[in-house]
Amino acid sequence: MPRLADHDQRRTQITDAARRVVARAGLEAATFQSVAAEAGISVRLVQYYFGTKRTFLLATHQAVVADAGTRFTRRLGTLGEDPVPREVVRALLVELLPTDDARRQDTVVLNAFHTAALTASDVDGEDTLGAPRYLVAAIADQLRRARAGAAPSDDGAEHRAGQDGDRGADLDAELIVAAASGLAQTLLVDESAGERVEQLLDRLLDRLVAPPASYKLE
Amino acid sequence: MPRLADHDQRRTQITDAARRVVARAGLEAATFQSVAAEAGISVRLVQYYFGTKRTFLLATHQAVVADAGTRFTRRLGTLGEDPVPREVVRALLVELLPTDDARRQDTVVLNAFHTAALTASDVDGEDTLGAPRYLVAAIADQLRRARAGAAPSDDGAEHRAGQDGDRGADLDAELIVAAASGLAQTLLVDESAGERVEQLLDRLLDRLVAPPASYKLE
Repeated sequence: MPRLADHDQRRTQITDAARRVVARAGLEAATFQSVAAEAGISVRLVQYYFGTKRTFLLATHQAVVADAGTRFTRRLGTLGEDPVPREVVRALLVELLPTDDARRQDTVVLNAFHTAALTASDVDGEDTLGAPRYLVAAIADQLRRARAGAAPSDDGAEHRAGQDGDRGADLDAELIVAAASGLAQTLLVDESAGERVEQLLDRLLDRLVAPPASYKLE
Repeated sequence: MPRLADHDQRRTQITDAARRVVARAGLEAATFQSVAAEAGISVRLVQYYFGTKRTFLLATHQAVVADAGTRFTRRLGTLGEDPVPREVVRALLVELLPTDDARRQDTVVLNAFHTAALTASDVDGEDTLGAPRYLVAAIADQLRRARAGAAPSDDGAEHRAGQDGDRGADLDAELIVAAASGLAQTLLVDESAGERVEQLLDRLLDRLVAPPASYKLE
């Protein structure tokens, strides 16, 4: 039996190779054979570590999600103590956007899993929904924090903001993730959008982090 | 030579078959052979009508876009004379969402083209950007209309709203299309999102069609 550290290292070597293959040629191109060749190891070794095609694909998906999580955490650490909600949401979204080669590869890979789930049978939609659902919940928490701070406390508006806050924050968080996700895919194919990405991201935060205007106006 | 009407009908028969094949099995599954079999005609006939694989794929993409355009126009026709901008934008977005079998198939097909453009060579990203860019421009026009109506005219705010209106409306329109596009893909894999689609769509319009709150508050 290999040592645990070697074991983890080998698994990462294989999922890294799988990510490159998927980014280059789509999920259907990721076979034990192609990934073994990409990693420069034997097919038997890939099979030893992952057993089935499904296990192997889910581990590859999980590796992309785990790397994004690590980047989120690192970026959050640069924001100092008690960052404002808008900055936390911004840090989360920046990690979703394909603004460098590594993130671009990850965005292509996540899209490949999504597309495969629509037609193929090795993975299905539910397999890929954990990360976006977690992200929506994390952003909704930040929106509730932002709105608790913004709501006036002396005219009953706080209570209304609280009611809308629960449901409204969930909907806004889902829209923020949808917009960032749509934008990420556009950035992969539309080079001109790259020039606007910072503006679009700031505009999205300007428009959806604050509570709806009616609560301010009432 | 076939008559023009027969020609159009035959092309539609072939692109309809291609759309079913792509929705079922991805863009890489759409070959002259598979589509001829799906349409119940000869491979030579498909080749006669479309010549190259690329021509054939672009015609299939165009057929999806044209159908969406026809649906937009029909829906706009039901809104009566001079519909408010919010309702026009809503009508456009409803046609992007996979809320029935036909729209679901079209959403899967458009995603298949997007995904193929990331890796394959028969189509590339620029081939698929015409429709979303048109949609962004059409929505931006509606947002400008909405904001021209909303801006106060007696305190100089109109001028500022006009300035933000040009750039702000473009950014908001791009975010609306990104959110609708992200939401459309989520709806394909997350059944629970279907229950929230009307709420999410209305929330998106509530939040992004109106001008930014600061213009109201100033």
